Amino acid sequence: MSEHTPQGTGGVPPGVLTLDDYEALARERLDAPAWAYLSGGAGDEQTLRDNRAAFERRRLQTRVLADLRGGHTRRTLFGRTLELPLLLAPVALQSLAHPDAENASALAAAAMGSGLVLSTESSLRLEDVALQLQRAGAAPASLWFQLYIQPDRAFTADLVRRAEAAGVGALVLTVDAPVRGPRHREQRAGWPLPGAPRPANLAGMAAPAPQVARAGEPALFGTPLLEYAPRWEDLAWLRSLTRLPLLLKGVLSPHDVEPALAHGVDGLVVSNHGGRVLDGVPASLDALPAVAAAVRGRVPLLMDGGIRRGSDVLKALALGADAVLLGRPYVHALAVAGVHGVVHALHLLRAELEVAMALTGCRTLDGIGPEVLWPGPQATG
Amino acid sequence: MSEHTPQGTGGVPPGVLTLDDYEALARERLDAPAWAYLSGGAGDEQTLRDNRAAFERRRLQTRVLADLRGGHTRRTLFGRTLELPLLLAPVALQSLAHPDAENASALAAAAMGSGLVLSTESSLRLEDVALQLQRAGAAPASLWFQLYIQPDRAFTADLVRRAEAAGVGALVLTVDAPVRGPRHREQRAGWPLPGAPRPANLAGMAAPAPQVARAGEPALFGTPLLEYAPRWEDLAWLRSLTRLPLLLKGVLSPHDVEPALAHGVDGLVVSNHGGRVLDGVPASLDALPAVAAAVRGRVPLLMDGGIRRGSDVLKALALGADAVLLGRPYVHALAVAGVHGVVHALHLLRAELEVAMALTGCRTLDGIGPEVLWPGPQATG
Amino acid sequence: MSEHTPQGTGGVPPGVLTLDDYEALARERLDAPAWAYLSGGAGDEQTLRDNRAAFERRRLQTRVLADLRGGHTRRTLFGRTLELPLLLAPVALQSLAHPDAENASALAAAAMGSGLVLSTESSLRLEDVALQLQRAGAAPASLWFQLYIQPDRAFTADLVRRAEAAGVGALVLTVDAPVRGPRHREQRAGWPLPGAPRPANLAGMAAPAPQVARAGEPALFGTPLLEYAPRWEDLAWLRSLTRLPLLLKGVLSPHDVEPALAHGVDGLVVSNHGGRVLDGVPASLDALPAVAAAVRGRVPLLMDGGIRRGSDVLKALALGADAVLLGRPYVHALAVAGVHGVVHALHLLRAELEVAMALTGCRTLDGIGPEVLWPGPQATG
Amino acid sequence: MSEHTPQGTGGVPPGVLTLDDYEALARERLDAPAWAYLSGGAGDEQTLRDNRAAFERRRLQTRVLADLRGGHTRRTLFGRTLELPLLLAPVALQSLAHPDAENASALAAAAMGSGLVLSTESSLRLEDVALQLQRAGAAPASLWFQLYIQPDRAFTADLVRRAEAAGVGALVLTVDAPVRGPRHREQRAGWPLPGAPRPANLAGMAAPAPQVARAGEPALFGTPLLEYAPRWEDLAWLRSLTRLPLLLKGVLSPHDVEPALAHGVDGLVVSNHGGRVLDGVPASLDALPAVAAAVRGRVPLLMDGGIRRGSDVLKALALGADAVLLGRPYVHALAVAGVHGVVHALHLLRAELEVAMALTGCRTLDGIGPEVLWPGPQATG
Repeated sequence: MSEHTPQGTGGVPPGVLTLDDYEALARERLDAPAWAYLSGGAGDEQTLRDNRAAFERRRLQTRVLADLRGGHTRRTLFGRTLELPLLLAPVALQSLAHPDAENASALAAAAMGSGLVLSTESSLRLEDVALQLQRAGAAPASLWFQLYIQPDRAFTADLVRRAEAAGVGALVLTVDAPVRGPRHREQRAGWPLPGAPRPANLAGMAAPAPQVARAGEPALFGTPLLEYAPRWEDLAWLRSLTRLPLLLKGVLSPHDVEPALAHGVDGLVVSNHGGRVLDGVPASLDALPAVAAAVRGRVPLLMDGGIRRGSDVLKALALGADAVLLGRPYVHALAVAGVHGVVHALHLLRAELEVAMALTGCRTLDGIGPEVLWPGPQATG
Repeated sequence: MSEHTPQGTGGVPPGVLTLDDYEALARERLDAPAWAYLSGGAGDEQTLRDNRAAFERRRLQTRVLADLRGGHTRRTLFGRTLELPLLLAPVALQSLAHPDAENASALAAAAMGSGLVLSTESSLRLEDVALQLQRAGAAPASLWFQLYIQPDRAFTADLVRRAEAAGVGALVLTVDAPVRGPRHREQRAGWPLPGAPRPANLAGMAAPAPQVARAGEPALFGTPLLEYAPRWEDLAWLRSLTRLPLLLKGVLSPHDVEPALAHGVDGLVVSNHGGRVLDGVPASLDALPAVAAAVRGRVPLLMDGGIRRGSDVLKALALGADAVLLGRPYVHALAVAGVHGVVHALHLLRAELEVAMALTGCRTLDGIGPEVLWPGPQATG
Repeated sequence: MSEHTPQGTGGVPPGVLTLDDYEALARERLDAPAWAYLSGGAGDEQTLRDNRAAFERRRLQTRVLADLRGGHTRRTLFGRTLELPLLLAPVALQSLAHPDAENASALAAAAMGSGLVLSTESSLRLEDVALQLQRAGAAPASLWFQLYIQPDRAFTADLVRRAEAAGVGALVLTVDAPVRGPRHREQRAGWPLPGAPRPANLAGMAAPAPQVARAGEPALFGTPLLEYAPRWEDLAWLRSLTRLPLLLKGVLSPHDVEPALAHGVDGLVVSNHGGRVLDGVPASLDALPAVAAAVRGRVPLLMDGGIRRGSDVLKALALGADAVLLGRPYVHALAVAGVHGVVHALHLLRAELEVAMALTGCRTLDGIGPEVLWPGPQATG
Repeated sequence: MSEHTPQGTGGVPPGVLTLDDYEALARERLDAPAWAYLSGGAGDEQTLRDNRAAFERRRLQTRVLADLRGGHTRRTLFGRTLELPLLLAPVALQSLAHPDAENASALAAAAMGSGLVLSTESSLRLEDVALQLQRAGAAPASLWFQLYIQPDRAFTADLVRRAEAAGVGALVLTVDAPVRGPRHREQRAGWPLPGAPRPANLAGMAAPAPQVARAGEPALFGTPLLEYAPRWEDLAWLRSLTRLPLLLKGVLSPHDVEPALAHGVDGLVVSNHGGRVLDGVPASLDALPAVAAAVRGRVPLLMDGGIRRGSDVLKALALGADAVLLGRPYVHALAVAGVHGVVHALHLLRAELEVAMALTGCRTLDGIGPEVLWPGPQATG
């Protein structure tokens, strides 16, 4: 795939200059229920808004006349070198956005030297996505697999074995959603939709426990949902099942860091699930510094939530992340232009990241530290 | 009453997912004067807005993989166990909202394991509300009685005796409204309305002193209104009248805590009267921590003002409340769907509270402390 | 004049509940140039807006069950007792608002136990206003006189002698406007208007120096305007001329306090001239605490700018003012209903002040201290 | 040229009272692409907005009764005395705004005792602008020359020689734009326009390296653009070429001050390039104090970004600047009324500056210190 993505070809519409442009176009193209599913957050969507506002509050500090020769944006995670410190976050049911679904996202990520964290609830079977990558000559390890511990532990163990067999690069265990947040945009759009796609990986699962605590139905405590909710001992069990790199996704509190490391996880992802579970938690970027201080560099630390610009990647790295996950924006690009859109979106982000690095005097990612952020009082946005 | 409240039956309209949905529907259904009476605040309504903004400024801190088995939301107050740490606040003249008035609110509260604090100025006589509860097999102690010390002290003493005879669980003395705040929405809507309902409990009261200092009429100082305004010595007198649990409602300043406890009150309610008396006082939630610090757990501490979500209950408890009172929102639900609406509203709040507790790692209310709030700088809303 | 001002009579329109209501009506009734003159501020009107925002940011702290018997709002200034801690601020050319002009303002103030600070640039001669007060049986000392030191010092001395002869209660020397601020609303409305009223007191003045530095004309430095601008030595000269109580109006910096007291002034007024001179200076209320700390109670301290509610008076007193001046709002009431409007406006403010005092536990003005303000972080408005 | 600029003559439209008025008129008169080029900022234009907001957050502190006789606004920089502490900033391609282009700006600046920093990318050749100044009897040293170090170092050296030959007063090396920021307004307006004017000074340059990292084209790192980006060693080389006063423009970080002084620069300009390069950096005014603290008065310190009022000049000087540069606003005036507009705009600023100085008690620029800013908490704008 060429480094150049000429605009107006390959399905990339002319005039798309930013990830926000993709969002506006995706909103036009997707039907209302799909848009509600993709864009909504939990509750009053404070956290959804905060994820963006947290980036807008931070200011960068420039440096002039720096030597930038030989600069690059490469980062090595779990033995594989990415061309940029970013992977595509797990987003369920991408066939809602584009018929090529996760296949397009995985291919685009691989082509750009990034990677895709495939959702447990993907539209396509993980084996199929991996096979398609192989056929395209891409490294299967550019595919990671996101896992929920299902109430059916045997099925969960089988998912882990399938991910290993498919050659994925890492397992990402999501722990911030033992219950599903009330997402009113989805509810008002009629979800769960009668004809909606089903998670292909979960076909045949013994007892798909309901994950929705809907208004008007029984509350949580005392229901099977919480009886089967994963606990630290389940993490120990999972860790015993596999030697794949294992990341814990959804950590916001520094108090959860030490238990996680004690259970042998290989990485953490600071995340509030895109503001989709518990409204009122801090922005991921705001939670990042305390978690980074607790991790003290012992394992790679990722974050997601609110990345829209290359300068956002720079800010996240300055506050302690080793890499970031990009969520909704790449699905917007997928909806608009399939694999070409996702490639283009990643290219835009990389170009913006490089501009931001050059102007803050950072030749490589290792040169990014807290000093690229302006230390004074922050503007209001 | 079933744990399930199927939407679309029992008068609960489909599509109601949050307490705010009830507010929107109530606004459509109530006539303009009733809406003005229910929704308005004093002065420029800063405090009315602040009551909400204070919750929106606070952020929660999640914990992952916690053991939530056997969790519950029960709280014991004055010897009675509530299913959730919430009672319905005293709101006057509920027949403005629904013909079943306080009967519906009391029944719904009892059915959900909550309680109603009946207003002195209720549409229905307290004896009738209590009798109706008994007939429904509900505990009379789920009914509390809110009291103003009337200029006619003998009538006031009689009210206390009537409340005791009716078997109420507690007396709540409101002390933040010796004068009535200027509520311009009410004034512009024509209040006091000629055909408006009258407080049934006050029928036959000797000298109902005017509680309105209206623009254009004489000011307060030097008028009988302030001569008869209750003072600390009146609290001593009231305390001597009854052995019912006695709470003081309307405390915002920590300096009022010690005198109150010295007078033998059994509980305090941090409240600004829903922003209806003195505009410009802090949000109840903002005043809560200092009052809680002064109380030091010696008596139960309640608060009201701004509760709209289960996560708000969690925030109030994290800042020192033992329980909260819910005000306008349940009257919205009452207006929309009578007893079914109030049950549904309480169910929504409980479900949201449980989600918030589960995701912050709180198995029971005793597990809720300041650490469930995010300690960093607060977002702006 | 009766304590009661029945609405709908005496020219007070029905439905006026607040000073803001008068503002809205005045805006409708005044012609565009008069409105521009009255309402506009300098520059981008930041300070004009800040004057209000500063009050909105402060929160009050209630006290319950206080003994309020015998309460009042009286304050003694320079030997005369006001019924409320408020005078009407100097506003020029009140015939723009109402044909009775300053006569109506002076009468209303006297009737309510307040006072009027008559502007040097009043529509009516100060002798005529004083005579009219006498005929109505009001104390001439309820009239104060505001003074600019004119380039013609002899004329200035004559003004002082005339004020003394008229029996005014105090002189208020305005020192914050040696040059006139650029008030674009006025400029766009065509000011100075050909047929506009002229200051009656200045008739016959030798050389009325231009006070407007208009865009397109020569700048200030090097012009006669600044050569004749009053300096500290002019204050010494003025002090030597009269034994009337002399106040300095327009102090915002605590550094100006000691020189002022050293020159023998009897009082200070913290003011930014209603935001009409230099845009970008702090709100009067924000400047008040530092000035009060510098004054240390040695002379009475007044303030103006932004008072719209009785609770604003309480806030100003809590931050160190002994009394306040009310500016634009009483001219709004004057425009709407003449003397009846001003009486009514003063009554509204007093009633609101009394409510605020009662609910913060203040029986008299001497009971108002910093503790009536909530000490916590301030809400945002 | 007369000190007086009567409105309605000389092409200055009536009703222009502020620089913002010129902006509104320029927006109407310029075609859409020219407006997009002139007004746009990089990225989401946060920094563009912050440049203004930073001024709006600061408050001034007045002083009364100060002696202002003999006051003036003169400042000497590099041996030449300016009538006001302000020069016109380098803005490219001014023929987009007016056919007289930089000739008008240079003449107006000279006439007002200011100066123009001519852009490398000016529409007119620097020699022609200098010649025209000479013919008008103006000092050639009122013209400064802004320089980019071009990839073609020989051509760069030639530019320096040409500037020296033309008699310019100083060289201003811009170092904050080794790459061009993504300016989406420009991009959406179709830039680079086919028929757009070309920088006259660069005619014949060997290899004009592309300065645009456009979306969809290769990113920066590894491209010739960064290989040829100027480094500190290039500054040393440039310093060796000329004895003209040399200023470094685009410094925001105090860490860049010491290296700059060590390389022998004669002055610094705190600037974020009008928010046109890296979005998300602080406002120039917010960055100014730390840079000023690092400079410690060793060389003149200028700033640009957000100046719209004379009081803004005062604020910048209070925070450590010796003078300021005015950017977009003078081009607005140029677009509206050519040389007359620029003269008028400078006159408006000077008049406003003098009012602000008089009211803060500053007789000369040397009297301006941090104490003219209000020390309390800043209002929010």
